[in-house]
Amino acid sequence: MTDATSRWAHREDLALLTDFYELTMMNGYWRSDRQPLTASFEYFFRELPPHTGFAVAAGLEQLLDLVENLHFTSDDIAYLASLGTFGDEFIDHLRGFKPTVSIDAAPEGTVVFPNEPILRIEGPLAEAQFLETAVLNALNYPTLIATKSARIRLAADGDRVMEFGLRRAQGPDGGLSGSRAAYIGGADATSNVLAGKLFGIPVAGTHAHSWVMSFDDELTAFRAYADIYPDNCVLLVDTYDTLTSGIPNALRVFKELRERRLGVRAAIRLDSGDLARLSKAAHAIFTQAGFDEPMIVASNELDEDLIADLKRQGAPINAWGVGTHLITSSSWPALGGVYKLTAARVDGRDPATPEEAATVAGALHEGGAWEPRIKLSSNPAKMTDPGRKRVIRYRDASGRPIGDVLYRADEDPQDGPQISYVGRSDLSFQVALEGAVHAEDLLEPVVREGRRVKPSPSLTEVRSRAREQVASLPEELRRLRNPEIYHVGLSPRLAELKTDLIRLAPGVLH
Amino acid sequence: MTDATSRWAHREDLALLTDFYELTMMNGYWRSDRQPLTASFEYFFRELPPHTGFAVAAGLEQLLDLVENLHFTSDDIAYLASLGTFGDEFIDHLRGFKPTVSIDAAPEGTVVFPNEPILRIEGPLAEAQFLETAVLNALNYPTLIATKSARIRLAADGDRVMEFGLRRAQGPDGGLSGSRAAYIGGADATSNVLAGKLFGIPVAGTHAHSWVMSFDDELTAFRAYADIYPDNCVLLVDTYDTLTSGIPNALRVFKELRERRLGVRAAIRLDSGDLARLSKAAHAIFTQAGFDEPMIVASNELDEDLIADLKRQGAPINAWGVGTHLITSSSWPALGGVYKLTAARVDGRDPATPEEAATVAGALHEGGAWEPRIKLSSNPAKMTDPGRKRVIRYRDASGRPIGDVLYRADEDPQDGPQISYVGRSDLSFQVALEGAVHAEDLLEPVVREGRRVKPSPSLTEVRSRAREQVASLPEELRRLRNPEIYHVGLSPRLAELKTDLIRLAPGVLH
Repeated sequence: MTDATSRWAHREDLALLTDFYELTMMNGYWRSDRQPLTASFEYFFRELPPHTGFAVAAGLEQLLDLVENLHFTSDDIAYLASLGTFGDEFIDHLRGFKPTVSIDAAPEGTVVFPNEPILRIEGPLAEAQFLETAVLNALNYPTLIATKSARIRLAADGDRVMEFGLRRAQGPDGGLSGSRAAYIGGADATSNVLAGKLFGIPVAGTHAHSWVMSFDDELTAFRAYADIYPDNCVLLVDTYDTLTSGIPNALRVFKELRERRLGVRAAIRLDSGDLARLSKAAHAIFTQAGFDEPMIVASNELDEDLIADLKRQGAPINAWGVGTHLITSSSWPALGGVYKLTAARVDGRDPATPEEAATVAGALHEGGAWEPRIKLSSNPAKMTDPGRKRVIRYRDASGRPIGDVLYRADEDPQDGPQISYVGRSDLSFQVALEGAVHAEDLLEPVVREGRRVKPSPSLTEVRSRAREQVASLPEELRRLRNPEIYHVGLSPRLAELKTDLIRLAPGVLH
Repeated sequence: MTDATSRWAHREDLALLTDFYELTMMNGYWRSDRQPLTASFEYFFRELPPHTGFAVAAGLEQLLDLVENLHFTSDDIAYLASLGTFGDEFIDHLRGFKPTVSIDAAPEGTVVFPNEPILRIEGPLAEAQFLETAVLNALNYPTLIATKSARIRLAADGDRVMEFGLRRAQGPDGGLSGSRAAYIGGADATSNVLAGKLFGIPVAGTHAHSWVMSFDDELTAFRAYADIYPDNCVLLVDTYDTLTSGIPNALRVFKELRERRLGVRAAIRLDSGDLARLSKAAHAIFTQAGFDEPMIVASNELDEDLIADLKRQGAPINAWGVGTHLITSSSWPALGGVYKLTAARVDGRDPATPEEAATVAGALHEGGAWEPRIKLSSNPAKMTDPGRKRVIRYRDASGRPIGDVLYRADEDPQDGPQISYVGRSDLSFQVALEGAVHAEDLLEPVVREGRRVKPSPSLTEVRSRAREQVASLPEELRRLRNPEIYHVGLSPRLAELKTDLIRLAPGVLH
């Protein structure tokens, strides 16, 4: 065993979990005396997965843990010095490095949409830049999976959903991040025991085909399992043949349990074959034998579309084990979230007191020397929205979100009922949201000067938030196919700023 | 910060990185007195990703590290006890648990194919069963990514390939496992600094758009970068407009460097726009200015198909940064590898001396009471191949692999030049490999009684092995679209055993 591999199981720090260019840039800012510059970066994504009407933000807790514990170990320092890229002064600086940035973010479990900031990091340019990869690694995947899980929950329509993805995840943390995000999005349990221990997620699982194969015959295997777990006896019935062997043997064992007045609910798992036909057959067999409401668990290549279609066909399945397609979001395996510079300020650190800065308005309104920055593109959708912003979500009288508007930091958000905004695809004309009754800030202060300013919600609270937020969406956004597109627009003044910056930029035809 | 989240950065053990059913089964074997049973499990996958002619095995090192360090901490024990599922005796057993299994495996970097065992674990049933999830988590994803990386390398045809996937990976270990596997498959470098430190992979990267945006103008930003990194100055030219701003500014800076006799190779990165058109334009501009062989790095949604197509169009790109599509294998984001029981033995542990057991033949041939086991399915392709096996790879006179044959443990492999075998899709007739000159065992002993029996190869050795093995493949398997299907078959005696077991099984019509 080498030193390197031993760290797979004993990993102690994540400071170097970053793209190399973050360090070359950090060193570059240091070397080019750009220390006094303060920067404002935003995390957002440009597209939802296909057929997806909303996303569920997740991963913030992991990011905050990483930021709060970030330090370069002596090993890290020695490794960086060995690369020959960095000067001694910079290396010395890293030795005592602790982030001093401030972070505002949408809480985990919040429903979010494309092209709106979900997180803002402000602080010394080199620091805020350095955190880019950590932000993207921490947020992109969990948000993708919480979103997928929420869709699966919508398809399952109240049935129990279990996440079984560890074996198809990207290593240990793929499984852990995935289980946590799936639980946030609405899964009821996970097969991943470590996720159960670390995060308090209920764990689920009974037996595999190998249990059956290790006995001389299926009936003996089922009896042995039922003897040990009479109260949680879900028998996997497809090791040999589901209809001629598995279900009859399971029925016999449940009858034997009933005679002993144990475990009276019949419960099986189907892991192959046609899940609609087999579940209907199993349901008929068990109910005819007097086992009302048998529990029929299905697994095998499930996703939200297949679950919805099986339910449409009346499959009497009442629990769903979803693995590969949940843990990988197989139809769209990466959320393309990005982290972009939106403003820079040359006058040093923010002079606000921590108390003032710990409010969204306080953090945004003072310190007037911010200069907005823009990233252009031949593709208008890829041009960034410049400047520090406030994101306001408007809701109608029934509490349903009707649109989010991005404001400049120095303007006051509009009151309802009519809210003017400019769409991102065409900056030249205004449209309006109608019926706005409630307005709320999407981002809230979570870190000031490198330290958390509010306690983390429990995972249960995060999951409840996600459930409530998804439930509050209009049904046109909760549809699984071809949903409506939610309104995210720029305030007229922000649109004006963006238009001006595009006109002023190099390479633009005037 | 809660206790739970602090473990993201300070994770100490992975014993519970398992599906819950492994523990319920383990407890079940314990409770049903099936301790004397010894089991043989195999890891294999049934399908390659679409259009893929071969796979590159990876992840074994992570698995062996996990197995060798596996232990339940007092925290783990307390958590398991709190679930109320397990008896005190079993919990006590876990307290001192150390794996005593033996493992044979194809070395990392070996080219492997569907339906052949790539790893075998033998030992006490409960132990070998328990390791299932760890095996699948450790091998599925790295094998998928080493394979994807090998395909990207084939498309890049000698150009430098850099893996830039960390920001789209499934958390920290997604990035680390992915970087390591991508390097094995042929990537030359990674952006992931922690992977560089832990595994010795070369790291690469220069600057992002935000570097440019943090300065008042692009030219100043480029000059600042070139001043700091004159020897490794790759300028990202698409922050504003590639043709009217980025390339002219970059050219000016490279001319200035040339005047100072510094960094004479012009180098840019294109991250948006049409990569063929822009790279041709950039190449013409730089060569006309006397910069021969400019380095043009491309990034942005690259995969093997796009790289191959850009090269077909003559794009003068000579380095490729591949992120999302490599780290997620986006077109097929999970390898469906499985772990199946193939044989069981009731007479206790293997009596061979460690010396005898430490050879493939020695481990397989003695201890005669093994009983083969089979998993049936209505889909013939999903029926498992029963019994303990030896896998022989045959090569022709030029060293090219021509087919792999699975033998029963108790038979002697055939010698060439003609090798009879039975295809898995129809067990009723024999076919033959022609021209077999070399024969080699695919699996080799790596763990005996829980301890490694050979040192791990270095990552460089693994990478070289992969490169040589891929290069030795016939071109019909290295094609990126619609490749030939490699022959993996059963020996006539193994096919006979399988046929007999299918006939004897419950639920099969006779």
